[in-house]
Amino acid sequence: MKIKALGLEEIRSVDWNVEKECIQLIDQRLIPFDFKINDYNTTIDVCKAIQTMVVRGAPAIGATAAYGIVVALKEVENYEVSDKKSKLDEKLKQLLATRPTAVDLVNFALETYQTAIKTNFSIEETLLKAELLANEMVKDCTQIGIYGEELINDGDTVLTHCNAGPMATIDKGTALAPIFRANEKGKNVKVLVDETRPRLQGAKITAWELEQEGIDHYIISDSAASFLMSKRQVDKVILGADRCLKDGTVSNKIGTLSLAVNAKYFGIPFYSAFPWTTLDKESKSMEEFEIEYRNEDEIKYITSAKEKILVANLNSKALNPAFDITPAELITGYITPDGILSKEDLMKK
Amino acid sequence: MKIKALGLEEIRSVDWNVEKECIQLIDQRLIPFDFKINDYNTTIDVCKAIQTMVVRGAPAIGATAAYGIVVALKEVENYEVSDKKSKLDEKLKQLLATRPTAVDLVNFALETYQTAIKTNFSIEETLLKAELLANEMVKDCTQIGIYGEELINDGDTVLTHCNAGPMATIDKGTALAPIFRANEKGKNVKVLVDETRPRLQGAKITAWELEQEGIDHYIISDSAASFLMSKRQVDKVILGADRCLKDGTVSNKIGTLSLAVNAKYFGIPFYSAFPWTTLDKESKSMEEFEIEYRNEDEIKYITSAKEKILVANLNSKALNPAFDITPAELITGYITPDGILSKEDLMKK
Repeated sequence: MKIKALGLEEIRSVDWNVEKECIQLIDQRLIPFDFKINDYNTTIDVCKAIQTMVVRGAPAIGATAAYGIVVALKEVENYEVSDKKSKLDEKLKQLLATRPTAVDLVNFALETYQTAIKTNFSIEETLLKAELLANEMVKDCTQIGIYGEELINDGDTVLTHCNAGPMATIDKGTALAPIFRANEKGKNVKVLVDETRPRLQGAKITAWELEQEGIDHYIISDSAASFLMSKRQVDKVILGADRCLKDGTVSNKIGTLSLAVNAKYFGIPFYSAFPWTTLDKESKSMEEFEIEYRNEDEIKYITSAKEKILVANLNSKALNPAFDITPAELITGYITPDGILSKEDLMKK
Repeated sequence: MKIKALGLEEIRSVDWNVEKECIQLIDQRLIPFDFKINDYNTTIDVCKAIQTMVVRGAPAIGATAAYGIVVALKEVENYEVSDKKSKLDEKLKQLLATRPTAVDLVNFALETYQTAIKTNFSIEETLLKAELLANEMVKDCTQIGIYGEELINDGDTVLTHCNAGPMATIDKGTALAPIFRANEKGKNVKVLVDETRPRLQGAKITAWELEQEGIDHYIISDSAASFLMSKRQVDKVILGADRCLKDGTVSNKIGTLSLAVNAKYFGIPFYSAFPWTTLDKESKSMEEFEIEYRNEDEIKYITSAKEKILVANLNSKALNPAFDITPAELITGYITPDGILSKEDLMKK
């Protein structure tokens, strides 16, 4: 990802700093108001970063958890060999408990953990594994961009929700990758960005990322999408995914289902873009996962960088489901590193 | 409307103060953070109050415009008889230009204006007409409550959007009237309140009104409605309307269409509640009306009482349609002062 305003040509939202031997995260809570990179070198701080959404987006959380295992390994380095595994297990458990919905978190953390065990707690080997996973993710996103770009015609308006750009995915993005690539190839593409209440990742992060690439875009209220679809001002809807089952059911940021239902009603193609780590081959039904209800203050207060102001009736309660579940019948296709797939194609994976 | 916290037993959002000879408006921009009643005695200030949303909601705007004609009449009182009509016409035009979508504004203003002309500019007679229109509106809303209450079963959860309560309608409300009445009759009713971006009238005003009546309610993000419908946590959707054509097409606050499409998909009854002034018997198509696009700062900034903070990427543009259009095929029924009507019933009106 390049950040024009700061003259940064190549930067990832999650990275390992070799000199400082720590994780570096772009603090996504500050975007677009401020730009800050934080260092993390304890498991507890890594967990806090995930929970407080310094880092967000399933693949970026996954990479953070992978590097988090390296951090954990460094913490237990001087323990007795007999204690090491139990201590590492404890830290793994802490990492896994940070967010219940994101499948990448579990996969990345477990794969890196297994390398640690297999290599007899080798920090070097485990770091290599974490780096490999991060690099594979970036390569997957590049492929998503290559395949997804073919769906975008010159002059198209694409609607997206939340943030499935470079910040969410280490680099390149999932839903945004095809848009970036279409723009690079000289296609004229306009983006409608759902602001994405309650945390406003669209208005804040996606809009900021599109600005870095110089792509024409408009922020809209989430509930304006339907009206703009009805007026034929949306050609395609492309979103990311937090988890996709083999039957094509997708769980993703709250608001996804509503967009998919509307896109179906108005006959507008709806695509879900994701890397292979997002495909959950084991689970039979999304009912197995409890939808995360986050704190009601996310609804009742709105946060801009450091300010937090009440925007609702103080004595009212709020309900704050963070994700929803979209059935395959509402999804036109899945943009993956192997191409644009149908529900039937996913079944064979 | 009673406002428990302030010990007010009977107050209207729009009223005429006989002693001060001026319009009194509850400043709805301050709700729920502060409670203030403002006096208005010039046409220019009345127009500003409508434009800056001191008063909002089609019927409340209508009543304000009706009393606004009385204010205008007082302003031209000392003009030569030959000048009076042209001066009054000018002020009528100013009032009509304040908001393009609300049908009540036009009807209330014109009816009161015609009384002024017919009675040879009698302030007293014109005020009586304005009062009559306001009282009829409150009576209509009472009837909406009586009929709509029958739709609500004990234990129901009703979802609503924006504000169609007493503040929007002088008193009683449209969408909220059936809920208030069900509660009065001892039915157990829970309300899901869409926060309603960009201006958050749901989180601010509807939630506050429900609190005054002691009704159990939860504020939700607009885009969470679909998920809660999919989980069968919504029994009915009841909204107000800004304008309804004889073919049953409804224009209303942005987000209405999205809810209607989702309610249809999930098989949940969707009702539009409105008084007769909202029925536009003349227009053939909503295409005749340009949808109002309000300032993009409503999207990019969020306002809480007096604070206004940036919540989006500063250099991005925003698109801010204020209303949308819902076709009759998505609407289960129309809750009117004459009962629950079908599209076919409306045709006969």
